[in-house]
Amino acid sequence: MVRAKTWTLRKHFEGFPQDSDFELKEQELPEPKDGEVLLEAVFLSVDPYMRPYSKVRMKEGDVMIGSQVAKVLESKDPRFPVGSYVVSNCGWRTHSICTGEQLEALLSNWPENIPKSLALGTVGMPGLTALYGLTEVCEMKPGDVVLVNAAAGAVGSVVGQIAKIKGCKAVGCAGSDSKVAYLKEMGFDEAFNYKTVSSLEEALKKASPEGYDCFFENVGGQFSTVALEQMKPFGRIAVCGCISVYNDVTPQTGPYVHPQLLFKQLRMEGFLVYRWKHKNEESLKQLMTWVKEGKLKYREHITAGFANMPRAFMGMLKGENTGKAIVKA
Amino acid sequence: MVRAKTWTLRKHFEGFPQDSDFELKEQELPEPKDGEVLLEAVFLSVDPYMRPYSKVRMKEGDVMIGSQVAKVLESKDPRFPVGSYVVSNCGWRTHSICTGEQLEALLSNWPENIPKSLALGTVGMPGLTALYGLTEVCEMKPGDVVLVNAAAGAVGSVVGQIAKIKGCKAVGCAGSDSKVAYLKEMGFDEAFNYKTVSSLEEALKKASPEGYDCFFENVGGQFSTVALEQMKPFGRIAVCGCISVYNDVTPQTGPYVHPQLLFKQLRMEGFLVYRWKHKNEESLKQLMTWVKEGKLKYREHITAGFANMPRAFMGMLKGENTGKAIVKA
Repeated sequence: MVRAKTWTLRKHFEGFPQDSDFELKEQELPEPKDGEVLLEAVFLSVDPYMRPYSKVRMKEGDVMIGSQVAKVLESKDPRFPVGSYVVSNCGWRTHSICTGEQLEALLSNWPENIPKSLALGTVGMPGLTALYGLTEVCEMKPGDVVLVNAAAGAVGSVVGQIAKIKGCKAVGCAGSDSKVAYLKEMGFDEAFNYKTVSSLEEALKKASPEGYDCFFENVGGQFSTVALEQMKPFGRIAVCGCISVYNDVTPQTGPYVHPQLLFKQLRMEGFLVYRWKHKNEESLKQLMTWVKEGKLKYREHITAGFANMPRAFMGMLKGENTGKAIVKA
Repeated sequence: MVRAKTWTLRKHFEGFPQDSDFELKEQELPEPKDGEVLLEAVFLSVDPYMRPYSKVRMKEGDVMIGSQVAKVLESKDPRFPVGSYVVSNCGWRTHSICTGEQLEALLSNWPENIPKSLALGTVGMPGLTALYGLTEVCEMKPGDVVLVNAAAGAVGSVVGQIAKIKGCKAVGCAGSDSKVAYLKEMGFDEAFNYKTVSSLEEALKKASPEGYDCFFENVGGQFSTVALEQMKPFGRIAVCGCISVYNDVTPQTGPYVHPQLLFKQLRMEGFLVYRWKHKNEESLKQLMTWVKEGKLKYREHITAGFANMPRAFMGMLKGENTGKAIVKA
């Protein structure tokens, strides 16, 4: 018999999440039945989407949603032998019972020297998000100028590097000088700290005087208003996230986007990574190849201890992480 | 020697246009040279785009931009014989000298019983705008629910009817009860007066409880915020115009569109009709065929007299027209 710890949503977030919105619980898990496996979390993910999804996908008392890399402790599904590693969407839990259908095996031949936590980042959902946003939504072509904000985050850092791999100019912004240094290290052509520039408009103009073909949008809000003005005709905006408005109690407002969209014939599209699930296997292999070749660098911001998950989540929402925010169980 | 009257932009509009922003001038025209023709305006168009384009395409003193159906009075271009009719983009002028390159001949075999002014409306730029917005931008499929605002206008009235021709449900809104009656006459499935409904949200829900696949946007502003909330997942928004903000001195603001776009994976795209110029010949024939078959009904709001062009233009911006606003010279 295994005792599992879980983090539940005690109270729906109002504004920025607080410690008291979370509750740590324990439960005894039964033995796995036929077709089930018992998992132990190794790495857990905290991601921006959890904030808006808490409103629509969860009720108070539910276990917090999320994915993890887990080790199989017991197995009644031959596809997932004891000792193997899987990615599971079972939420903020130290241990869980899942059916095989809920699991993805880790990419086969995962190299020894590459941390398995990358299956939650560069070679996982955030990496796929970057890839699909650029290729499927922005329809990025060689020579395009690509703008990405929250560029030192799990998704943004991959966006800029894929743009470079595909022959584009990558411009990134982030919220601290050390993040900006990291962007340059990763090969971004231009990078700046949006919190310290005197004018975002001027900074964007300086980084690309001719404007932007693609804008990978992670932030929303005021940033988007200024960036839209800098798009070239027929520019494409992939709306991947809008972290600046997730904690709004009353929605922030800004100028309507219509005139910008209309006269420059811009296309702005929201997307969720699951739309291209049928391509994931091939895409994950591609991401792993780039990692192994050194073309895709990564950093992780690791918080130790399952007990610290809320703190890691809130820190990520504040932008404390450079690279993917991970909790090591 | 012909004396031409022209309407010029005396002063850039500030807010809603005023009589004093326009100035009527006269000028003597020279004889047409080789390759040129002398035109006399028969019908002139007033369109919403003239308001925003005045800011970016005109300087004070310029002749107001716009298209007209004109008769060839003298010709030194054998493609446009004396007595034939053309569509010219020469602006608000009673007479003009143009080169053949600036002209489009009227569709050949134009039926006697169909007014030539339709070349400025249903079988012209506004008709093409409706067609391309639905087929190219919205990628409308049979069975889709299509929403259009300013639905009794030159473009909107064609949008709803093409939606019906292509097997879709058409929902339209307009700003008066007589316009709503006209929408029903044209075969819209649902139509309402957005000025008198107690709640736009409720009216949209009642017209299509399951939401909207396509939204042909002519208005922008607050309407768009409410309409976006009613889009189905993977909905498409074709931004054709935003007449509600054209006269803003300081831009109106509303909630950022990102959360709606993101979580429903909506696509919002601005477009200008000229993008599909290569398809115009075929498309105009299609529009004319529908008109002749009685599938595409039309109405025109005709103002008599070139002297009244500013009044016709301002009236159109206020929504005084049902169907295409035309000035008969």
